[in-house]
Formats: sequence, C-alpha cells, structure tokens
Amino acid sequence: MKQIFRESPSLEAALALLRQALQQRTAGYMSAETIPVRSSLGRVTAQAVLARCSSPAYHSSAMDGYAVRFRTTVGASETNPLLLKLGVDALYVDTGDPLPAGFDAVVMIEDVNAVDEAIEIYASVAPYQHVRVIGEDIVATEMIVPENHRLRPVDMGAMLASGHLEVSVRRQPLVAVIPTGSELVEPETVRDRMPQAPEIIEYNATLLGGMAEEAGARTMRLPIIADRLDEIKAALRTAVEEADIVVINAGSGKGSEDFTAQAIAELGELVFHSVAIKPGKPVIAGFVGNTPVFGIPGYPVSAYLTFHLFVVPAISHLLGVSIGASERLDAFISRQLSSPLGVDEFVRVKVGAVGEKLVATPVGRGAGLLMSVVRADGFVRVPADSEGVAAGGTVQVELLRSRDSIRNTVVCIGSHDNSLDLIANCLRHRYPEMSLSSAHVGSMGGLMALKRGEAHIAGTHLLDEESGEYNAPYLKRFLPDCPVVLINLAYRQQGFVVKKGNPKGIRTFHDLVRDDVVFVNRQAGSGTRLLLDKHLRDLAIDPDRIAGYDRDEYTHLAVASAVLTGLADTGLAVLSSARALDLDFIPVAEERYDLAIPEAYFGQPIIQRLLSVIREDAAFRESVLAMGGYDLRDMGTIMFRSGQCIEP
Amino acid sequence: MKQIFRESPSLEAALALLRQALQQRTAGYMSAETIPVRSSLGRVTAQAVLARCSSPAYHSSAMDGYAVRFRTTVGASETNPLLLKLGVDALYVDTGDPLPAGFDAVVMIEDVNAVDEAIEIYASVAPYQHVRVIGEDIVATEMIVPENHRLRPVDMGAMLASGHLEVSVRRQPLVAVIPTGSELVEPETVRDRMPQAPEIIEYNATLLGGMAEEAGARTMRLPIIADRLDEIKAALRTAVEEADIVVINAGSGKGSEDFTAQAIAELGELVFHSVAIKPGKPVIAGFVGNTPVFGIPGYPVSAYLTFHLFVVPAISHLLGVSIGASERLDAFISRQLSSPLGVDEFVRVKVGAVGEKLVATPVGRGAGLLMSVVRADGFVRVPADSEGVAAGGTVQVELLRSRDSIRNTVVCIGSHDNSLDLIANCLRHRYPEMSLSSAHVGSMGGLMALKRGEAHIAGTHLLDEESGEYNAPYLKRFLPDCPVVLINLAYRQQGFVVKKGNPKGIRTFHDLVRDDVVFVNRQAGSGTRLLLDKHLRDLAIDPDRIAGYDRDEYTHLAVASAVLTGLADTGLAVLSSARALDLDFIPVAEERYDLAIPEAYFGQPIIQRLLSVIREDAAFRESVLAMGGYDLRDMGTIMFRSGQCIEP
Repeated sequence: MKQIFRESPSLEAALALLRQALQQRTAGYMSAETIPVRSSLGRVTAQAVLARCSSPAYHSSAMDGYAVRFRTTVGASETNPLLLKLGVDALYVDTGDPLPAGFDAVVMIEDVNAVDEAIEIYASVAPYQHVRVIGEDIVATEMIVPENHRLRPVDMGAMLASGHLEVSVRRQPLVAVIPTGSELVEPETVRDRMPQAPEIIEYNATLLGGMAEEAGARTMRLPIIADRLDEIKAALRTAVEEADIVVINAGSGKGSEDFTAQAIAELGELVFHSVAIKPGKPVIAGFVGNTPVFGIPGYPVSAYLTFHLFVVPAISHLLGVSIGASERLDAFISRQLSSPLGVDEFVRVKVGAVGEKLVATPVGRGAGLLMSVVRADGFVRVPADSEGVAAGGTVQVELLRSRDSIRNTVVCIGSHDNSLDLIANCLRHRYPEMSLSSAHVGSMGGLMALKRGEAHIAGTHLLDEESGEYNAPYLKRFLPDCPVVLINLAYRQQGFVVKKGNPKGIRTFHDLVRDDVVFVNRQAGSGTRLLLDKHLRDLAIDPDRIAGYDRDEYTHLAVASAVLTGLADTGLAVLSSARALDLDFIPVAEERYDLAIPEAYFGQPIIQRLLSVIREDAAFRESVLAMGGYDLRDMGTIMFRSGQCIEP
Repeated sequence: MKQIFRESPSLEAALALLRQALQQRTAGYMSAETIPVRSSLGRVTAQAVLARCSSPAYHSSAMDGYAVRFRTTVGASETNPLLLKLGVDALYVDTGDPLPAGFDAVVMIEDVNAVDEAIEIYASVAPYQHVRVIGEDIVATEMIVPENHRLRPVDMGAMLASGHLEVSVRRQPLVAVIPTGSELVEPETVRDRMPQAPEIIEYNATLLGGMAEEAGARTMRLPIIADRLDEIKAALRTAVEEADIVVINAGSGKGSEDFTAQAIAELGELVFHSVAIKPGKPVIAGFVGNTPVFGIPGYPVSAYLTFHLFVVPAISHLLGVSIGASERLDAFISRQLSSPLGVDEFVRVKVGAVGEKLVATPVGRGAGLLMSVVRADGFVRVPADSEGVAAGGTVQVELLRSRDSIRNTVVCIGSHDNSLDLIANCLRHRYPEMSLSSAHVGSMGGLMALKRGEAHIAGTHLLDEESGEYNAPYLKRFLPDCPVVLINLAYRQQGFVVKKGNPKGIRTFHDLVRDDVVFVNRQAGSGTRLLLDKHLRDLAIDPDRIAGYDRDEYTHLAVASAVLTGLADTGLAVLSSARALDLDFIPVAEERYDLAIPEAYFGQPIIQRLLSVIREDAAFRESVLAMGGYDLRDMGTIMFRSGQCIEP
C-alpha cells in the first residue's frame, strides 16, 4: 500500500482515505461460509441464489373442483349446459392436487351440478382457469436473491421453496474492542457500592460492541488495559490475530497519556489521525497487516459518533452491504444553532411534532453526555463550511427513531423533576406507542421553549417574589400572546441537604448563620435561590451572616456533592439530590411544580393521554409518593388559564 | 371471557376483536426475566431503569491542565498576568482526573506559562470551566429508560454507566408453528432430487418463524402433520403447553379437508374465522386456554400477510411494545388499480424513482406468488369501501425497503431473460447500494410501462414480421413521442425442447410435420409464436400439418413441462426452460433481446452504472456465456436511437 497518511483531514477526505485503504487492503477478504437456510435470517448472501427447482413443481389445482379440458367446455351456458363424464372428461381435484395429465383447467365445485357419473357445467372454461401452472411462482434457474443481499424471512421461504437447504453467506466480521485507561474499572467492580474517585466505569466497549452487532458483526471484548504503550501494543498484537477489525478505546488524542496512534504506527501504519469533526475529533484509522484498526475517543458521544462514521462503514465493506441510510426528515429550528467553521459538527436534537411543525431542538452538546444520545431523536450535521443555522431555518435530521414514534411523543422542555420520569414510564406502560421526551433546561428555559413553539409542555417552578405566587405571573410577563393552561403536578419539598446523620443538627434557616455551619448556595436566578432569598427576607435573616452564601453551585446535585465532599455542611436542594448521594435531608420549604401547556395543544390526544396518567393512574400517584418529599393535593388541577389572547 | 366469535368480520373489526380478546386473556402474562445488561441488545424493558449512581461520579477535569479556584483568577489578563503557586493555588490534572477538593475550575495547559513552582495565567476563569461536574451526564435516581423500551447500544452503555449490571426485560414470547398438509414434505426430502407430484416443499413455517423472530419472539417448529382433525388437535394440545402463541398453517379455510377451525373450537374457542381481506381471507384467531392460536392460510402470500396483520400484533402485545410502523410514502400510480368492494386488498407494488416521480407498479396479485413479495418494494392497501385507484392517482405505499434503496434502484419492466438476473447480481456486487428490480410482463407490457413512465428500462424481443427487424419498429409505432435508446443485451437461441436424449431425433422445423411428432405451441402474439410463424412461412411449411399447432401454452416453462409430462414431443422455447426441467434443447433460431431506455433516463448515474456492468464487467459476460445459448457480439451496442421528438 502506498503511504496515504493524512493528519487532520476533513470528514469527507477521511472517509475517502478509509474507503480507498479498505479497497486496497481487504480485496481478498470477502470470505463466505455455508449455513442452513433455516438459520440465515439477517445474514448477507455471498453469491446469487438461483432456483434449483420450480414452484409449483407441476400444474396443480388452485380450487376444490373438477379438472377438465377447456376445449370440451366450449359452448356451455346457463341455457345450454354441458355434461362432462366423470373419469373421462372431468376428474375431481382438491386444492393443491396435481392436475391430471391431459387436463388443462379446473371448474370450481360451486359452479357444477353433479349428476350421477357426470357433472353439468354452465359456462365455457378458459385454458388454465383455476390452475397453478408449473413455475407460476418460481421458475427453476431464475434468481431468488442476488449477492450482497441481507436475507429476510420471505427470502428464506423462497430459497426453501426453490430447493435450497443451504446458502452461502458472508462470514460475519469479528470486531475486537480493547478498552484502555488506567482509571477504568469493570462494571462488576462497583456492583455493591458507588464508584469512588478516580474510578470510571467502563461501558464504552459494550456500547461499541452493540453497535457492531447491529451492523452485522460479531464482537470480542478484551480486558481493560492501562494507558501504557507496551500493554496497548501487546493487546493489539493479540487482537489482530483473531479479529477482522480492531477498535482501541481510547487514548486516541495527542496528550501525554495517549498511546493509540503510536501503537498502531509501530505495528502497522496510520491512515489518518484526528478529523475535523465535532465531537470526535481525536479519531484514528490505520492498519496492522491487512486488519483495519481504529482509535476511538473516550468520551461516550465521541465514541458513538466516530464508530458510526468510520467503523460501521468498515464492517459494511467487509460484509459487502451498503450502509442502511438512516431515515431523514426536515425540521424547523427555532433557535440559532451556531457551529464553528472548519469542522463538521453533529448536533443531537430532539424532534417534536409541535403544532403544525416538526421542530428540532438541540440538546446537550458535550461529548461526555451519553444521555444526550439516549434521549436524542436524531442528529443534525452542520457542515464545515457553515457557521450554523439561523433561527427559523430548516435542518435535515438523521433520525434515531421512527417518524411514527415522533408523532406520538409529548415534548417537555423545562425544569426537571423526577416525577416526569415516572410519567414517562406510566405513559409507556399504558400506551406502548407513546413517549414523553424531556429536556432539562430550567423553568425559564422551558417557558421560552413554549414561546418558540419547541415544546408541548414546560415544567416550571418559578416563584414571583412580589406576589409570592408561582408560575402564573411569569406566564403573563413572558408569554402574553400565548394562552396557556397551568396544571399542577406536585408540591415538592426543598430542604437542607446534610451529611448522613445530620452531625451539625441543622433544622431551620436560622441554623445557617451559626458560626460552625458552612453553606453552599445556588446561582442567582435559579428557582431554589429565589426560594432561599424569600425565606431569608421573611425571616429577616441577613444573607451576609451566612458563611458560604456567595459560593454558587449550578445544580441540585452539585450542592449535594459539596456537602458529601465536605466543602460545605449544608445547602438547599430537592430531596432527590440528597437521595442520589445517600445524604440526609431536612425539608424546610415547599414549592409548586406545574406543567405549562399552551391551549393550542391542550386538546390534542397525546396531551390528553398524558393528563389521564397524571389524573387517573393510581400506580403513577403511588410511585410519586414513594419517592418522598411530594404533596399531591392539587395533582392534575388547573391552577391558571390565561385569557384568550391574540396568537402571534 | 364472554363469547365474542365473529364470522367474516371486516379487517378493522377483526383487529378490534383480537385486541379485546388479548387484553382479557393475557392480562396476567407480561412476565419478565433478569438478564445481563451486556447481552440485552434488542430486548424490551419490563420496568423503568433508574440510575443507581451518577456519572461522572465526582467532579473531574475535562482537559489536561491545572485545577484552580476561580476566585483566585479574577483580574488576570494578557497585560496583567497572575501567578498561581503550584501545590497551593494550582494543581496539575490530566483529563478525567478527579478535581482536587476545594478547587472549582481547570485552566488548559495550553493557556498557562509554567514558571518554576508556579503558573502564569492570562485570563480569569469561570466557575467549573473545563470541569465535568458530578452528574453532568447521569444523575443518580433519574430514569435511564422507561418500561416497554427496546434496548439499543446507547441504552446498554448508559445502564452500565449508571451502575446496572442486570436489567429486567420481557421474556420473549415463544411462537409454535405447526405445518399441516398431507402433501407437504420437508425440504430435506428433496435434497438430491426434484419434487414430484403431489409433493409440496414445506417452507411457510420458516417464513413465519423468521417473521416471529423479527418481531422479537422465539420460535419452535413442530413436525409436519397430515390434514386430519385428530392429529391437528394432538399437535395443538402439545403446542399450547409450551408456547405463548400457536400458529397452525394451513387448513384454515372451510373446505372438506380444512380442520383448523374445528380443532381450535373443540379445544378452546374461536374469536373470528375468515376476514374480509385479500389475499388471506381464510384466517382464524382463537384461544386454547389463555394461549392465542391462529389459523394461517396456506398460500404463501396469504400466510405472510395474515401473520403480519394478526400474529405480529399479538407478539407485540405480549412484549408490551408498539408495532414499529413501516415507513410509508406516497407514490403515483400510472395504471388503474381495480379492487373488489367489501374487502381490504393488499396489493404488492414495485416503487421506482422514475424521472421526477415515485411510481408504484402493482406486481403479481396471486396469493401463491411468494416471489411477488420477495420482489416487492411495498404494499398498497385498497380499503374495503374503495373500488380501486384511477390511473394517475396517488397511493400510499407501506415500504418493505428503505427510501434510499428505492432511489438507487433501476426499474426494469418487460420480457424476462435470465441475463437480467445476472446483471442484477453483478450490479450489486460492484455497487452494494444499488439494485435492479425487474418485473416480468412480456415485451409489449414493458414498452407500455415505459410509455406510462413506470420503468427506466424495458427488456424486449419483438420481431416485426414485415421488416424482419427487432424492436425498433415497435418503438416507432408505440412510443412515437418518447425518444428511446435501444441497447443490445444478447442474441439468444430459441430451440426445440425435447425429452432427454432426443428420442424422436428432432432437428429442424421440418421434423414438426412428421406423423410421430406432437408439437406444443405458444399463444398467438407471443414473441416465440411470431418467431415460429415467420420460420414456417420462410420454409413454406403449412401449420395445419403440425399436430398440436393449435395447442397453446402461455410460458416457456409450460411448453417444457408439456414435453416433460409426455403431452407433446417438442415445443419452441428458450434454453433456460429446458435446463429448468432437465430436458434437452436443439437450437433452431436466434432472436435479439434488447433493453429499451428512454433518453430522459439514459444519462442518469444509475443507468450508466448498469450499462457499465453490461459493457465492462468481464465476470458478467462470462456468466451469461456460461448459461449457454447466448451470442454476445453486440452486447452493450446502441442498436437504435429514435430521433428527438416532442415530449408528451
């Protein structure tokens, strides 16, 4: 192979390099194996299958009735019936019976009158009427399926029908996955405890193995190895002996502890290192001998995307199939989507059928957010020569779910509460075709999403400091032109997250000013911060007296984490954050958590189904109560309904 | 269960009855099993999976660099750099390292200047810059996936990441298939010979088993049993003991040898018998105990369709998932599609991207034509209250293939020749994403399909008796307004099909008038009949002197079959028909087989790729020659190009 290594190519250039290298290196691969037709579902043919015999294999009757010769029926009519002698001019046949030699048509039993040793017929008969002629379905020698065809149940049926018991199919490529990283631990290690810093649970190999299986490969996972060049080279040497494709995850960057590129280069050669994509830039392709080897980045979204972009095509190449292109649809984008020039960016989006439009909403863009892929409905590719898409523009979404399931999805964007997960689950239990898709962007973000027509529902818990009222004042202020129904989901407890056993004996807001108590706060503008400040003002507690009041955290869980790690003694957060880190919780304040639903969607069946879960599903109610910290006295009640106003 | 049996309901009524019966009978089913997450791909969750631990499980560095406290960086700028003391105000961290306690941001190594025991920074730092905060991806207690969710690789990754090693999934229903029919033989029976009347190869059980597997079930196939009530009841009794769903194939009609309905009724009860659909009318649903039992018709297309319509939903019901709706698209229909009132008819269609339009063309409608499903791109449902669709109307097609693959398909409608199968195969070998889809409707049917804009290509071998010229005169006559390119594919031999060893010593057309020779003819208007008549006229042979000249058959293979079964001594047909039935063949005439391609499509890449196979692919050429009976002297040559005329 001539040296084709490229540093930091564009996506298209990288794909072209890979294609070229695969064609050169794996020309002799395409190996086949012969397997029983009965267990060939989903396999790919290595050569065309030509019918060995015809089906039907002989002329046969398609009806229960009498075999006749069409010439002897000429002239028969209602007024001039014809008698055909049984055993001579007519023979009884059941459906499927071979047509007796010399006969060429069948009269249905319903259309004759049996008279002694004869039948009376009332119409002439066309040649081969009600006869399944030989080869009607399959003619021996004709092609049943071509080479490179993924076998379906009908193909299996047709192969058996045409006399084949075995079929030659492509051997399924074996993909070896080598997880590397000194901090990685097997999931089994933390079976009975929580992971401790610096442990990271190894899960990418399972993710990538699953993707390889879906692409038609078999997989082999090697044990976790440390970030050491010698270990990586040893594992790579072992893997290429057996596998058809090797994937090293991770160490694919250019940092001081990244050895993947070096390992491949020392045992074979590189095709490219680093590609102008986001996420997934530090990806590597190379060969050891004729075996393709990929260096896949460690961040799970990068791993997912680069495997999809580069390894799946390599598997398809060895299988001889084209990559099944994902379904695509055009969707409206309601916010500007910026993207750096010079890289092809793949943005995860949720897609909702909101009102008349299909709306794509970008979700978390961090390469570390695997849940953004779990929750995504698709990807939008922003090409390297584009700085993004303006608000109101149209994007093409490569779907991860079916169009149908998108039509059956309630899109909820806003503040998150665990009870939304429970709704999602109960909804799916009652209506398996339905989904609740929720994105967590905070209460105000949710209202803005409603305003832009991105969501059916927003979860919100915004306290108006002046009136002491929840949510409705914000709707009036920020969505004056959009009539909205406000449905209560629950009242939830905010409280002090404290160490297990509450060693400092924290009970009330007054404890926060104690000299021995260090507090951790939420950022200004958050619902929790509003709640704290209102209580402090009501109780006339001077914030300046609280140690740590000026130390901000940005999530409930970060507050709990600060307590867990000893940076603070307490902070205000929801119960679930304390539960998540196994901390104690002292409830001190109640807040109202509502769902805001524009009138325009309120009557839609998918919304009414969701409301039926909230209002009628006893199992849902019980599961919310079981979480603790919730009061359901107004669950499902309309708390506010804005007057009908002009639609924008 | 209250008695809900209905005779001959409509499709909607039958589906409603089935749904209702399944809900009543299988309420307690939904059983779950716990399996390792690592082998859960494609399984369906039996309950929601909530994160057991957070990911990341602690704040960690997202970059190689230095952990700092953001407050100590305030005021740093290019002109006013700040010194942070190593070990006190800054600590070195690699990507993924836990953030040291008390630190709250990371400065990238590229952005600092290391000076002895300190680093110099040039900008202030935002809180949590380059930090992956605890729970950034997954917060403990949040829902990873809901109940009734089909697990994907990303879900498996996220479950492991959130501390799950096992997952509770729905047990895969076991579907038992009982093939019945006294004439059925196992495919193994005819491994080394052709099926003989009345043998029929049993292949439906494999077809239906494959469909069950695709729907998420496991399958169990019982041995073939005869059409006897006692045997069917015994097999049914055995099957319901183990299986979750039982399928009896066939005997589902109301004929004298149909016992399925009676067997179910005697052991349990019927829900419906016979449904107003076409094909597939004689379908049965019932229960034995709480086990759903289906009677599925014997014709393969009926079996396929009724399994799809009734059994797949029952499997989905037990799995708790919604049926993945097939992709649908709207297509133009160029010929009237008639359909009887009162039945929902499911018509197999080919779909082609021909010119600007997606065109749906109905293919063989016989219930016995499994190959019509193998070759179909989708189904069109003509509702019971419709008599069909007018030419030029739009139909909705439920796709069996992806949209993408349809765009990459060359549609060929016309006379069939086995070399078209070889083109299809070589095309797929060179370009795995491409297909050649061919429908066999005869030469004239193909030209009419071109005229209606249904096909890219028509295979044709029409001899003009007056001029002795092939194809071009027909193009001038029937497609005067459509400029067409005529490309030769091959000259093929027509000849006399004779018994093995040619016992009557037939050599020339003159042998046909011998007293001891019985001929079998093709129908008037067929290309072969035109060829015969021309030769007889040229040789001044009086057709009346040929015994059997007035005995018509309608296909090449039927002619060969008449010879095989002794009804005739010889007939004129193509070599492949003789090969198919292992007969001998005496070549006597050559005919030209061309591909007609409208100029409008000629330049399209998919057509040019196809032509490149015909013109350049040595393997294709060899495989045609290997079939025998072909002369390739003009293969790929343009034989005729009609003048540019006005487009209609």
